[in-house]
Parts: sequence; C-alpha cells; structure tokens
Amino acid sequence: MEIKPPSIEDIQNLSIRTLGAAHIPSPLSQRTVQFVSDENKILVYTHSLDLKKIREQNMEPPEFELAGPRDKLFFDPANLTCGIVTCGGLCPGLNDVIRTITLGLYWQYGVKKVLGFRFGYEGLSSLAKKEPLLMTPDNVDQIQHAGGSILGTSRGPQNLEDMVDVLVKNDISILFVVGGDGTFKGAHQIAELINNRRLKISIISVPKTIDNDIFCSERTFGFYTAVEEARKSIVAAHNEAKAVWNGIGLVKLMGRDSGFIATHATLANSDVNFCFIPEEPLFLDGETGILSRLEKRLARRQHAVIVVAEGAGQNLMADNNPVLKDASGNIIFHDIGLYLKEKISGFFKQKNIPVTIKYIDPSYMIRSCPSIAPDSTFCIMLGQNAVHAGMAGKTDMFVGYWNDHFTHVPLTMAVGKRKKVDLTGEIWQTVKLMTE
Amino acid sequence: MEIKPPSIEDIQNLSIRTLGAAHIPSPLSQRTVQFVSDENKILVYTHSLDLKKIREQNMEPPEFELAGPRDKLFFDPANLTCGIVTCGGLCPGLNDVIRTITLGLYWQYGVKKVLGFRFGYEGLSSLAKKEPLLMTPDNVDQIQHAGGSILGTSRGPQNLEDMVDVLVKNDISILFVVGGDGTFKGAHQIAELINNRRLKISIISVPKTIDNDIFCSERTFGFYTAVEEARKSIVAAHNEAKAVWNGIGLVKLMGRDSGFIATHATLANSDVNFCFIPEEPLFLDGETGILSRLEKRLARRQHAVIVVAEGAGQNLMADNNPVLKDASGNIIFHDIGLYLKEKISGFFKQKNIPVTIKYIDPSYMIRSCPSIAPDSTFCIMLGQNAVHAGMAGKTDMFVGYWNDHFTHVPLTMAVGKRKKVDLTGEIWQTVKLMTE
Amino acid sequence: MEIKPPSIEDIQNLSIRTLGAAHIPSPLSQRTVQFVSDENKILVYTHSLDLKKIREQNMEPPEFELAGPRDKLFFDPANLTCGIVTCGGLCPGLNDVIRTITLGLYWQYGVKKVLGFRFGYEGLSSLAKKEPLLMTPDNVDQIQHAGGSILGTSRGPQNLEDMVDVLVKNDISILFVVGGDGTFKGAHQIAELINNRRLKISIISVPKTIDNDIFCSERTFGFYTAVEEARKSIVAAHNEAKAVWNGIGLVKLMGRDSGFIATHATLANSDVNFCFIPEEPLFLDGETGILSRLEKRLARRQHAVIVVAEGAGQNLMADNNPVLKDASGNIIFHDIGLYLKEKISGFFKQKNIPVTIKYIDPSYMIRSCPSIAPDSTFCIMLGQNAVHAGMAGKTDMFVGYWNDHFTHVPLTMAVGKRKKVDLTGEIWQTVKLMTE
Amino acid sequence: MEIKPPSIEDIQNLSIRTLGAAHIPSPLSQRTVQFVSDENKILVYTHSLDLKKIREQNMEPPEFELAGPRDKLFFDPANLTCGIVTCGGLCPGLNDVIRTITLGLYWQYGVKKVLGFRFGYEGLSSLAKKEPLLMTPDNVDQIQHAGGSILGTSRGPQNLEDMVDVLVKNDISILFVVGGDGTFKGAHQIAELINNRRLKISIISVPKTIDNDIFCSERTFGFYTAVEEARKSIVAAHNEAKAVWNGIGLVKLMGRDSGFIATHATLANSDVNFCFIPEEPLFLDGETGILSRLEKRLARRQHAVIVVAEGAGQNLMADNNPVLKDASGNIIFHDIGLYLKEKISGFFKQKNIPVTIKYIDPSYMIRSCPSIAPDSTFCIMLGQNAVHAGMAGKTDMFVGYWNDHFTHVPLTMAVGKRKKVDLTGEIWQTVKLMTE
Repeated sequence: MEIKPPSIEDIQNLSIRTLGAAHIPSPLSQRTVQFVSDENKILVYTHSLDLKKIREQNMEPPEFELAGPRDKLFFDPANLTCGIVTCGGLCPGLNDVIRTITLGLYWQYGVKKVLGFRFGYEGLSSLAKKEPLLMTPDNVDQIQHAGGSILGTSRGPQNLEDMVDVLVKNDISILFVVGGDGTFKGAHQIAELINNRRLKISIISVPKTIDNDIFCSERTFGFYTAVEEARKSIVAAHNEAKAVWNGIGLVKLMGRDSGFIATHATLANSDVNFCFIPEEPLFLDGETGILSRLEKRLARRQHAVIVVAEGAGQNLMADNNPVLKDASGNIIFHDIGLYLKEKISGFFKQKNIPVTIKYIDPSYMIRSCPSIAPDSTFCIMLGQNAVHAGMAGKTDMFVGYWNDHFTHVPLTMAVGKRKKVDLTGEIWQTVKLMTE
Repeated sequence: MEIKPPSIEDIQNLSIRTLGAAHIPSPLSQRTVQFVSDENKILVYTHSLDLKKIREQNMEPPEFELAGPRDKLFFDPANLTCGIVTCGGLCPGLNDVIRTITLGLYWQYGVKKVLGFRFGYEGLSSLAKKEPLLMTPDNVDQIQHAGGSILGTSRGPQNLEDMVDVLVKNDISILFVVGGDGTFKGAHQIAELINNRRLKISIISVPKTIDNDIFCSERTFGFYTAVEEARKSIVAAHNEAKAVWNGIGLVKLMGRDSGFIATHATLANSDVNFCFIPEEPLFLDGETGILSRLEKRLARRQHAVIVVAEGAGQNLMADNNPVLKDASGNIIFHDIGLYLKEKISGFFKQKNIPVTIKYIDPSYMIRSCPSIAPDSTFCIMLGQNAVHAGMAGKTDMFVGYWNDHFTHVPLTMAVGKRKKVDLTGEIWQTVKLMTE
Repeated sequence: MEIKPPSIEDIQNLSIRTLGAAHIPSPLSQRTVQFVSDENKILVYTHSLDLKKIREQNMEPPEFELAGPRDKLFFDPANLTCGIVTCGGLCPGLNDVIRTITLGLYWQYGVKKVLGFRFGYEGLSSLAKKEPLLMTPDNVDQIQHAGGSILGTSRGPQNLEDMVDVLVKNDISILFVVGGDGTFKGAHQIAELINNRRLKISIISVPKTIDNDIFCSERTFGFYTAVEEARKSIVAAHNEAKAVWNGIGLVKLMGRDSGFIATHATLANSDVNFCFIPEEPLFLDGETGILSRLEKRLARRQHAVIVVAEGAGQNLMADNNPVLKDASGNIIFHDIGLYLKEKISGFFKQKNIPVTIKYIDPSYMIRSCPSIAPDSTFCIMLGQNAVHAGMAGKTDMFVGYWNDHFTHVPLTMAVGKRKKVDLTGEIWQTVKLMTE
Repeated sequence: MEIKPPSIEDIQNLSIRTLGAAHIPSPLSQRTVQFVSDENKILVYTHSLDLKKIREQNMEPPEFELAGPRDKLFFDPANLTCGIVTCGGLCPGLNDVIRTITLGLYWQYGVKKVLGFRFGYEGLSSLAKKEPLLMTPDNVDQIQHAGGSILGTSRGPQNLEDMVDVLVKNDISILFVVGGDGTFKGAHQIAELINNRRLKISIISVPKTIDNDIFCSERTFGFYTAVEEARKSIVAAHNEAKAVWNGIGLVKLMGRDSGFIATHATLANSDVNFCFIPEEPLFLDGETGILSRLEKRLARRQHAVIVVAEGAGQNLMADNNPVLKDASGNIIFHDIGLYLKEKISGFFKQKNIPVTIKYIDPSYMIRSCPSIAPDSTFCIMLGQNAVHAGMAGKTDMFVGYWNDHFTHVPLTMAVGKRKKVDLTGEIWQTVKLMTE
C-alpha cells in the first residue's frame, strides 16, 4: 500500500533476457487458458505527477513485462529436469512456493523430473552435504500447512563455476531460486556464467524477503503473515505494559534496511506509542529525543509500547563497535532492542522514576510460521508465474508484483537496491499521527 | 490481485463533488504532514493494451483523484459534529473503521463531537429505537480486537427526508457511511437531497463488502480475513472427506454475485477439487456436469472437496421457486449448498456408490471475526482517508483503492455495478489448473 | 471437573482380564523407568459421603487398576505384529494417539511391525477396500499437527468371525481400538471371540468420544479442543446477536446424550444466555418455557445467545417423526437447532416482535481440528499406557482417567452406559447461575 | 495429570479457619442450588499404596474440605463491600477470575460494592498511586477475552498494618487475593493480623502461578494456556532447526522451581529432543553431559530441539555470580537460555562442527495471552468457589483443585512449599522415553 515507485534514474532496462525463440506449443492450450503475450506490459508509474515529469523530459513511460502463461515454450517439457533452491532466512510461504512450482511443472506442463537442492546454494555445490531431493506431488502434499522450508536453506555464496557444473551434471534446464537481494546477486552471476558458457539454462527467481524490501515489487510473500504475527507480540507488550505502573513494552521486529513490518504492525495494532524504523534516524537525548518523549508519555498515561525495527538506530551504536558480517555478507547489526532497553532503564533510574521494561523479540517465531491465506494465494500466483516464465525460456529475472499485476523484472533491477518506507508518504504519516 | 478494471464505457465521470471552497488551514500542518492536492491523480488503466485502445479512440486516460490530507479544510473542526453509521451484514474490520474515524476526527483535527448512529440507517430515522452513541477515544479503546460492530447494523432503506432531518437536528456536518452497494445507493440519495436542500453536509462512504465486489476498488476491508477464515473451513472439509471412503467435503462460502472469497480460499488452501462461483454457470448433468466429474474424481482418489459460493448455480434452482427479497432488496438466494448436497447424494444413491457428504456453512463465523492484520492496516488507511476527504468538503464519494493507492470515487460509479472474477484472468485460470 | 462417579450398583467387577502370565523382562528396564505393579490401584470414590455409605454397607471401596509400564511382558517384542484401528466420528487428537502407539511400540519396546487398518472396523474385514498401512516412525512424522485420522474411520460393526480371521491372518498380537461406546461393544465381542477360540490376541481400547461421555473416565481426549473451538462459534453468535436489534445467536453443539461440551463452552465463553443439554428436558411454552424466557431476555437486553446440544429437546420432536438409525446403530437425531430456529421465529412473528436469528452449526469444524496442547499431552499418556497394557498381556479393557491417574478399566464397564452432566453438581449449577 | 500428592509429613492441619458462625440464609436458595456442607470432604490420597501406609501407621486418611455454595452465610450481602487484588506476574485467566468474582458477588449474592485495588499489594497501601476501581458488571464486560489484568499487578510486600488499615478504611469484608506462593505469604500475614485485631475480614486466595507449582492443588489456571502457547514456540524452534544443516532450536520456558510447562509442552509437541527442568540437575560435560548427547543427536539427525525451563541448570551458573533478588524476594535467576546457547556454541566451535543455534524466549508472549477455554472454565469455577467461601465466612485459605473437585486449603499449607515434577512419575518417564 502506497509504495513509492523507483525513481526514473533507477530504471535503466526493463526488458527480459530469453534463452532463444519459443516455438514449442504449450500443453496448456488443451485446457482453456488465456495466454499472455510479451507485448502485455504494465506501467511503472500511475501517478499523474510522475507521468507529467516523464512527459516533460520527452521520455517514454517505462513498463514492466506482464507475467503469465505463454502460448509457445522454449523448453520441451518431455525429458525436462528442473531444480528448486531456497536461500537465506526463513520466511512464511516458502513451502507454498516450493509446492506450487513442483505441482505446476508436473501437472500443468508434464515435466517428469524436479530436483530440490538442499540447504540453499550449498546444495548446488559439488561438496553438498546432501543429495538433491526428488520432488513429487506426493512429497509436497500438505507441506503448505507447515512453516519453514522442506528443502532447507543456508546463507552465503558458493563457487559459481562449481554451481553451474552441478546444474549441468544434473541436467537442469530451469533453476528456480527463491531468495532475497543477496540471493539475486548470486542468481544473476549464475545466469551470466551460463550465458558465457552458452548453456541453455533458465534462472528464474521468486523474491523472498520478509522485510518486503525487494526493489521493483510492491509486495513480497510472507510479509502479511509477518505483520499478523508481529501484531500478536505487540498485544503481548501492551498487556504487559498496562499491567504495571509505568510499564514499558518493547518489541523488536524484523527490518534491516526497511521498516515495513514495524510500520504496518504499528498501524494494525493501534496500541503502539513509538515506532522506530531504519529509514528515520533515532535520537535518544534532547527535547525531541525518545527518552524525553517517553518520559512525557509515561507521565500522561503510565504505560507505553515501543516497536523498533532491527535496523533502526544503528547510528547510535556504530561508534564503539567493530563491523561484523554474516555468511551472506550482511553486516551483523548491533541489537537495538537490548540497547534501547538498557538506555531507557538507565535514564529512568537516574531520574529516580521506577519503570518496568518488558522486552520481546519474536523474530524466529514470526519467520517460521505457516503463511496466512493472503500470502498463500500470493505464493501460488508467484510460483505459477515463475513456472510460466521458465518454460517460455525467460531468464535472469524475478517475478514481481506491481499495480495489481504480476510482472517480469530483470534481476539486475533489484540487486544492491532496496525498497524503503517513504517518510513523506501516507502510511508513515499515519503512523506519526496515530502514535505517541 | 489481477482485478479486471472497469470497461471504459463504465467510466463516465470520476470528478468528486465538493460542498464549496476549502480555505481553512488544516491543523495537521503543525505536524510534519505532506499534503495531497486535488491535482494528484492515479491512472485507472495501467495495462499497455488498455492504454493503446484508449489512445486509439483519442480519449484521455481516465484517472481517480488521489486520497490524502488536504492543506485546506472546508469545515472548521471547532464546534463540528460528525456522525458514523454502519449498514448491511457484518464484516471483519468494522470496528477498526469506526475507531479510526473517531480517533482521526478527535486527535488529528480536534473535532469535539462524534455521534455513532445505532443499527444502520434505522438509527438515522426519527423513529430510531436507540439514541446515537457519543463516540469518544475511551469508548473506542480496544474495540479493534473484537468482531462485529459496536454501533450495530440493519438492512434496508429509511425515509430520505426523515434521515436528512435527523442529520440536521443533530447538527451533523460529515456523515461517514460504512456499507456496500445497497448502502451506497442510499448514501447517494441522501447526498442528492442534501444538495437539493442546499445543506452543507458531507457524505463520505467507506466500502464494506465481504465479497470484495465493490466496483472501482481493487480491494475492500475484511476480504483477506474472510479468505483466511474460509480456509479453515476447507481444511475441516478436507479432513472430514479424507477420513472416510468416498468422503465429500462441501463448503458454502459467501459470494452473492462475485466469487472472490471462494476463488482466493481455493488457491490459498490447495486442497480444493471443485470451486463454483456465480460468474460461471453450473451444470449438474452430462459429461462436463459436476456429478460426472465428481464420480471420476472419487474413482481416482476416493475423496473430494467442493467449494461453492452462495450465488453460484442459482440458474439450477430458479425454475420451481418464487423470487423473495430481503429488507435490503437483495434477492434471497436458494441454498446452493443444501441443493448440491441433495443432488450429489441422490446421484450416488442411484448409482449404488456409497458416499459420505459433510456440509459446512461457516458464513456467520467468518463475518463476525476480528480482522487479521493486513485488513486492520487497510481499515486504518481507509478511515483516515475518509476523515481527510470529509474535512476537505468532499461529498457523495467513497474511498477506493486502486493501483496501490487510496482514491476518491463518486458513489454513482459503484451503485448498481459489481466487480466480478474475470473468468479469462490469471487467478481464475490458476484455480482451473490447480483443481479437479 | 466435578464429574459424578458411577453409582456403586454400576460397579460390578473392575479386575482386568489377562492373556496369561507375564514373564518376559521389559526392555524398558534398560532405561531408568519406574515400573507399576498390578497391586497399584486408585480409589473410585474420594468423597467422604460416598465412602461413608460404602463403609456402612460393609463393602470394600472399589478401585481401578493403575496404568503404567510393567516390568514383565506377556508378549516378546521380537517378531511381534500389532494393529491399530480408529472407529466412529472424527475427534481432535486421533493422529496424536495413532502416532504415540506407533512410536511407543517401535522405539520403546522394539516391535518391528505395526499395521494400521483403514477406515474403522471395515478395514478389519476380509472385504476391506484398502490394505492395511504399514506404520513406521517416518509415516507418523508430524501427523500430530493435522486434524482427522490418517487411518480413516467408518461407522458400524462387521462380521466378528471374519474380523478375528483377519487378525489371525495378519498375525496380530495386540489390536489397539480407538473408538467410543459403540466401538467398545464391538471390541469386547472381538475379545470374547478371541477367548473362545483360545487365541492370544490382546484388545486394548483408547476411548474416543468428543462428547466426553465414556463411563468410568473423567475425561476423554479431544474434549478440551472441542470446547475451545465451540467457544469461537459462541463468540461469533454473540457478535452477530449484538449487531442487530433483537438479535438471537443460536449455536448447536455436539452432545448426543451428554451436554459436557455445551456446558463447558457456556462457562468458558460467559456470553451465553441459555444453555440446553440432553440431561434436562426442554419446554417451549408456558412461563418457564424458553420462548417466554427468551422474550423477557430480549425485552431487557435486545440480544440473546443460545447454546443447544444436539441431543437436547428430542422429547419435543419425537411425536411426529419415525425413528431412524445410522450405520453404528445410533438413533439419528432430529435437528434441534433448526427446530428451535423455526419455533422461535414463529413465536416472535406471531407476537409481531421483529427478531433476527443467526444459526451456527460448527460441528464438523470442531471435530476435524488438530488437538490443543492439553489434549495432545493427554493423548500421549493414553497411547503410552495402552501400549504398556497391551505388552503386559492385558485385554478386553480400555485406558481410563480417574482422580488424576491413568487406569485400566474393563470394556464391559462402559458398554451401554454413559457419563452425564450432573444436574445437581456444581458445574451445571454455575451454568444456571451465570446465564439468562 | 499424575501429580504426586504431598507427603503425609507435609500435611499438618487441613481444617479451615472461619470468622464465626454462619447463620444468614443464602439468597441462592431461591434458585435451585444444591448446597455443600462442611462435612463434605475429599480424600487427599487415592492410591492404594499411600492409603496402606497410612493405615499401617494407624492414621486417619487426610481430607480437604470441599468447596461450593453454603446454605448459611456469615456475611449479610446487603451493604457488604468486597475487594479484589491481583499480585505477581501476569498469567492467562486473570481477567476471567476478576470478572467471575465480580459477577458472582453482584448477581448471585446481591453485593452492592466491589473494589478493585490497583497494581497488586501496592494498591492496598495508603500510599497507593491510584484509587481502587469501582467494579461493576459493566466494566468487567468482555474483559475475559483480553490477556493481562485490568487491575494491574506488582511484586513485593507492603506494610501489613497499613494494608489492614486500608481494608478497614474502605470497609472491606472480604478480600480476594489472586497470586502465587509469595502472595499467599502476605495474605496469610494479613489474615493473622486481622485475627489479632479481632476484625471480621475474610481473606480468600485464588492461586495464580503459571508454573503450576502451588502445593496441594493439582492444577492452577493459565497453565494449559501456557502449554498451548509454549508449544507454538517449540514448533517455531523445530522449523528453524530443520531448515539448516546442524540446526539447533533452543526454547526457554517458564518454570522457576518446577518444570511442568516444559514437561507438558514437550509431550504436547513431540518434536523436542532434550527437555531440562529444575528438578533434575543439568550436566554439560562428560558422556552423559548434554553437549556430548547433543553432538550424537546432530550426527544422527542433523537437527535438534532443546527445551529448558528457566530454573534448570542454576547449579551450573551459581559459582561466579552474586545472588540477586527481585522485589518479591525471588532470587533473580541467571539466564540458562543464553548460558546454554553460549556453551553449545563454544563446544561445537572448538570441535570445528558448524552449527546454527536459534534461541527463542517466548515468556512474555505466553504470560500475557487470554486463556484458552479449559482455563477459562477453570477460572470461573475457582472464582465462584472463592466467592462462596468468602460469603460463608471462611478465611486464611485458598481454593484448590484435587481429585477432580474444588477444595478449601489453608494458606499455610502452600506457603514456602512447591509442587514439583515427580522424576519417578509417569509423565516425566514418558518425556524421557519420547526424547533424544
């Protein structure tokens, strides 16, 4: 809702790379399916002011290619082998996506063999600890009702040449890569190497980021589930805060660079008094600092609920600490939750005002949930469109969602960029109006 | 997702009526809010083929006015009285909307008096059984966590002149009307009468339809909650069906004219074998009739799950039954669930094939739920934008949602029309591909 | 809670039949397990007045044999084959029980082969439609998180000689029978026939009745889950009732002969105004009839919530209707929910008092749920103790729960009798005090 | 389930103190209520071996007084003022108890005034920060659906003389004290002082301990809810653990001195591999130490789930740390969760075995939940019986639950003692058999 589109400067080339001409008739034509041609596009900008600016610059309004089944395929489903891999942290809906891709390949296109690589990119290495799982309709039965990923996942890259060798060895024609921004980088490099080695292997990504921060897609799967679960933690924090004199409920939510979960959960719950996100700098001291604002809130109402995204306030903690990175190359953040807890506690101790702080970190409980229905439906549409795109010979792309439609987006559009909460947009403004 | 836009013929006039010039500075300017001007518009069509057609006809692409806070108000918040009324059947999120409108008026604009009319339009009658409730931040505290509507609701219209008299008597300047297509009709008539009587009362609607069938809005509140709850019934039906030899689980879901709930719940659950919606005619007999298809399914798998929207198959039952209407003027549907149960039962009895049918009608349990988080957030944005629109002196309009933005839409655009599942669109095609 | 014990006349013989001397050392002795000897008993009566009466009659206070692992087994686990069968309607926890019995046999006793007979007693027939399932730790993995029964179920008896032949043919030494009062009757007959044919096959039952009406057991699995789910329906009925003028929410709950679910759900919810159970006759007319009481309630509060157990008020409907029975021999009840709906509707129509009735029948949604934690734990203890009993050579018995302990009870104690809500007991008295 | 009874040495005097002769006829006699006389008792021991031992010592088997409505009251409901106070940590069901006591006093006995003291014993101090809340049926409406305590709570004692003065000043005749072992100590001291000052004020406690560790009561409210919620964390930990190679899910649950929550949640979930409770010493090193056992588990299955009660393994951490206490006088425990996380992490790092540990501490989310139905029903029965006991002039007692009946127990029986998991009992033995 109210996602700020990418700036025109960020949009270079929205055309999708293909492996070659698609000339094999789709088996879907035997069932009454309406095909989508590559001429179907969706406008990136729909806002009159954005469009006006573009026209003033004599530019053509950019468009995303529309996703959907194509009447001609690049790959012949007979004797085709496809692969699936899930990378990075857990996210609600992973099993829905795995299941839909598997069933779509088997039942709709008649693909005979689908391999599930185990534990992320590690499973694509020749040193993989576990053999790929042979995916069948039977072994994806009912997995949509469980959280986690039946394939497992891991962080970090693997040797590119080695991964492409493994794909070749396993005779993979389409690899479905479910992951986030870091995973996209790897997927793009694999696609490039495949191109250099003149192989005919398609790389199709489904964006997976619980933070909802993938560039050029309004929404990603698992996000709504995350907000729903996050809300439960806030209810808990509110109950704890109200139950004691000067009670403070502090909830740390996911959101490394983008505060969408914190923002939406704050609105959904309506009991939050302070919401801190990475997009906005955090100040402890002074009149507008949060300590003083918190003091005023407690004086007025004797309880307060604080929601903080994990990436917020990193500025406060940067000074004295060395920068560490995880296997994916992500900077390991300082724990803003514990930091705030300590600072708040110290502040009120010094002022001799007794407060009780209850700190809740529900992250793992949120990530590992099964998806709620709106996310499940969304996963199915993403998975379906990923299969359609792969069969048509598209590559080096991910399935996005824009202006109510599913789209094809080049991987390069999202690598190294992140969608952020628009601080001047209406969602954040409403958070400001509804809190404190 | 993948909502088919209205045809160009259906779009006559998207401009919003106002009560007069807005010249009172908004109190929101004291808080760092970005205002939205009336020049901000959102394209109705974003699909290249739609836009091409429009350009070929030398027409201007139609646009919705963008919702949001205006820097100038028509009404002076001091001494303003506003009213809220909720009409029609229950829908998850009603209390979120009531709460947000109340708090938005009090806390953001400083309105001093908000009245909640009781039990729908009945409460706007001079013969109302209950006095309006004085709405305060205190009495809307925590109501967002409960289903139902604290104001109550009713079906059917009231005397127009009388209702406007009651508004005048209560000194109402903005009336917020939460309801569906039938309610919109009444709201529009009230707005017309107000205009004729040269009164300065704004009528702002928030669309409420659990079926998600309001024209010119991609999504309505409560819909996602309904799908989530509907999914639970389907899980139950699936468990019952699988637990016996030739078990059939039959679930009737809401959807009078539009099968969005059935469609999305079917995708979300992935255990449904047959999904029937009002948009597609239903046939019992013959090779393509559902009885024969069901027989094949049972022969293959020994269990089946059927989802049917309440408005589906009305053609089958029309012959022998008189047409009855409820207080709202809606045709009272024949019960397709019971009808199917009987027909299926008779069919297999005749064939001497033992089957066990378990019929579930979860409608009231779905309608009366509290909203899940994505709906709550959505309700807050709708309520906020309704308040902004009313304070700016807009009238005879509802708050819509289109291409990821909140919009102003004339009530007349949605009266007597309904958004429907596009049978050639990708969502329905996916249902077809994933079932049976 | 506050279960009335069986009368002393109902207790004839609580001693448990065995297949012979148990002399094989239990493999559990290698793990630090405390064994239970057959001398361990649990008093049936704990109430001073009950015990006084017994002493006055010079009787010995009766005792149940205590369940638990025995140090000597009758069966040698090596080369043993066991069977499991689930009968009758669905009940939350069936899969927990199936899983625990399977894992207990494999992991604790080292049994090598467990067969799951499909679809109730039908699966024990030589005409069974499906082969028994080979149960392994792998195929019971995670089944505890799903409702239903992976083995399936059916109603009604089968030929006794034939079933025993099937047991012999499959080399079954212990058959675990999960079912209710009707299933117990069959299990007892099987045990008798086995005895007559001098076979060494143990029949161990785990009571399954969502109604919680098994005689000589304070509690049965799935009951708490049923109450939890029933409560959700009542919340829905309450929201619907309050949302309109003179709204009546009517919920039909399970409870053929015993109103435990209705009683406990009424207390748990606290929003119920009328609770009708089979144990208490129901009157429509007159001063104390429910129609007149309902009228008074509506006059006072303008809404009402009614909970009715399916077996209540059968007296009202007996006259004009023939008696029908289902495959299990249970009388098919007239639908008291629809009957009440009609009668209430007619009554107020005649009085010209407009009311709105919303009728909810959540039965299938309740039965097919996965179990909540207190039931899951309970299932595990039941399943464990069933395994222990079978391995020790006990037979013709079920695992009960009494005075906080798991017990062995002869099947004959529960056949043809039912535990009922004590109308003079505190639970029902509290319902009376808290409603209307 | 399978609670070990107190040893005979621990049972000194089970007779209940009263304020004087009860001679006022109960208003409940106008409604068809079965009264309970003080002669109604419930045996403490029901196990044949326990009873044998007692008989051998020529002792009389001890009995608890049965709870329930008495036909004669000590207090005249007319002009009576009662008070309620909730102390200690949050626990699911607090609002159910508050509501039931309030409604029971108003509706059943016709008491006119009930005061809710705010924030625990602090609210009974003359320096209380907030005035007592006037409790009415209206302000307890629907509170049962929310977690927390509408009265608030606090830790620690207050001046005894001052609290009794406040009771006198507010004209309190019955004070209902909802709290745990520490709260009981205060309640008993208040009762003693009241006795010394020859006042006629009854002190009735309802045991509140999420740990289920109150002595002489088999079960306490909120415990089942806690187990249900704890199970969700374990599911999360299991999903996280399985999703990566050598994944370890570590969940810390409540349980300071008694591991009932950990024990029951482990059984309910069935995915736990290690369960550590305070009753059993914890060893890290050596063959039987958990590090080595964990290594074997990972080698075998590549993932593990650990549940640890907060009070477990305190022996490990005692050496280097000073003993700190909270306001209630409870020793502040070292965080066994973080400790284990560190030790496990270090152990595998040293062995050069890569593992991923996900640590979940759901405590605040569990405590602050609304109660599930079995707990709600239980709360209502506790609250009802507390009201009955108070009106009859009983004092210095709490309402217990034993052998399926509600009982009166002297406060002194539970002060300074704790119910513990029986390491030789069947529940714990089953945990041992089902894990690793």
